[in-house]
Amino acid sequence: MSTGFVSLVGAGPGDPDLWTVRALRRVEEADLVLYDALIDADALRQLTSAQCFCVGKRAGRASVKQETIHRLMIRAARAGKRVVRLKGGDPFVFGRGAEEALALALAGIEFEVVPGVTTAVSAPALAGIPVTHRGVSTAFLVVAGHVGEPLDRTLTAVQPNSVTLVVMMGLAGRGAIAEQLIQRGWSAETRAAIVCGASTRDEWTWTGRLSEMGSANPPAGVPGVLVVGEVIEVSETLAAAMRPSTATDEVKYGRHG
Amino acid sequence: MSTGFVSLVGAGPGDPDLWTVRALRRVEEADLVLYDALIDADALRQLTSAQCFCVGKRAGRASVKQETIHRLMIRAARAGKRVVRLKGGDPFVFGRGAEEALALALAGIEFEVVPGVTTAVSAPALAGIPVTHRGVSTAFLVVAGHVGEPLDRTLTAVQPNSVTLVVMMGLAGRGAIAEQLIQRGWSAETRAAIVCGASTRDEWTWTGRLSEMGSANPPAGVPGVLVVGEVIEVSETLAAAMRPSTATDEVKYGRHG
Repeated sequence: MSTGFVSLVGAGPGDPDLWTVRALRRVEEADLVLYDALIDADALRQLTSAQCFCVGKRAGRASVKQETIHRLMIRAARAGKRVVRLKGGDPFVFGRGAEEALALALAGIEFEVVPGVTTAVSAPALAGIPVTHRGVSTAFLVVAGHVGEPLDRTLTAVQPNSVTLVVMMGLAGRGAIAEQLIQRGWSAETRAAIVCGASTRDEWTWTGRLSEMGSANPPAGVPGVLVVGEVIEVSETLAAAMRPSTATDEVKYGRHG
Repeated sequence: MSTGFVSLVGAGPGDPDLWTVRALRRVEEADLVLYDALIDADALRQLTSAQCFCVGKRAGRASVKQETIHRLMIRAARAGKRVVRLKGGDPFVFGRGAEEALALALAGIEFEVVPGVTTAVSAPALAGIPVTHRGVSTAFLVVAGHVGEPLDRTLTAVQPNSVTLVVMMGLAGRGAIAEQLIQRGWSAETRAAIVCGASTRDEWTWTGRLSEMGSANPPAGVPGVLVVGEVIEVSETLAAAMRPSTATDEVKYGRHG
């Protein structure tokens, strides 16, 4: 009897062009793909004849329960299937990838991790913001932005303006987070940015000051990251010469011969 | 006259299988590739007929000066060439990618950033260590491990045991860094890991306690990251079921039908 196998695969910030070569191959060869809501479902179905099932939140439907995702993966692997669990960004940066890996390990299902391009770094980069820059920032801190106890604790644990701060899933809390940072001693004038839908047609970027972050109006329904730190200044100089990644490659090369 | 163009491309942790699809295409279509020492030069030359030139440090030779790299990129782009600047990991996580982007922008050369799989996240992941894990760590801090003033300042800025700490380019300083963390109040019993050569045939992993990190003996000449935090415990449970990424895909699939 053949043994099934699960690949926990990172799909990067959005554009399938930013999948890894291995991610592409795993999807092509899969029998079953369980994917998150942020994955480009049309692109996915063009790439594979596998059964594809969205387990994330979609219009009018809640996301599939975490325990159900575990059960689906385990059952399919036990039936000998090659399962791909396709997650936005990197599978081990938030998004409960470690929980899924543990569930597989405890069930005795062999699996692998295929790292992806994490949104924490690539969303800022695609907006011309380097999370590190010589002489400006030699460290970056990535946190999940669900307002509440764990976020409070982390923001308390770091001295104001000491690192580049990247907040994932923090769009809804942007005002509260900016206020909290300023109360904790971050300069209200610290540069801040919001990058939504990086690498997709919905890409939207705002830059300003920390004190203004709560007033920014990102588009509804597009995920994004908050960035706080002086590295954002670099993006102003880069903007004039940096080509956006959102046009298709065909268009890009057409323009440039 | 055609206009040249520069792509600042991240090559991920090592294995070309972890390049993005876009990185692969840019390299295939390039006229000139300027690559870092950690890039797999044999794989590179199989993928492209471009002129390939290593600008990183190699046995018996210093790395090319940063200003020279800028000049080479600018000159080739002005001559109408498609230039790829291929960097390990992600181009905007350390490694002076932002400096290169600024040099291009100031010279009026159009460029793009192609994000890569950052070693900061993927090296731990490939060793079964998630940088975040529900209930264990909701934040991770990435720092450059050159012992000295900027590192001191960052380590001072963060409360002990409050985040997962990832130190890049910190192998040589591992003893000093562990000592410094313990002096600043991190528990000597905090779990620690060293992951070298992730995704390559030289992959080597050590896990232990922070107090022991200075005594670990990583292989010479293989780059690596230090990880400090309780998330490392997860890797012990995952180890039994997690397939290593270092074997070739052919071998992997051969084993599993």
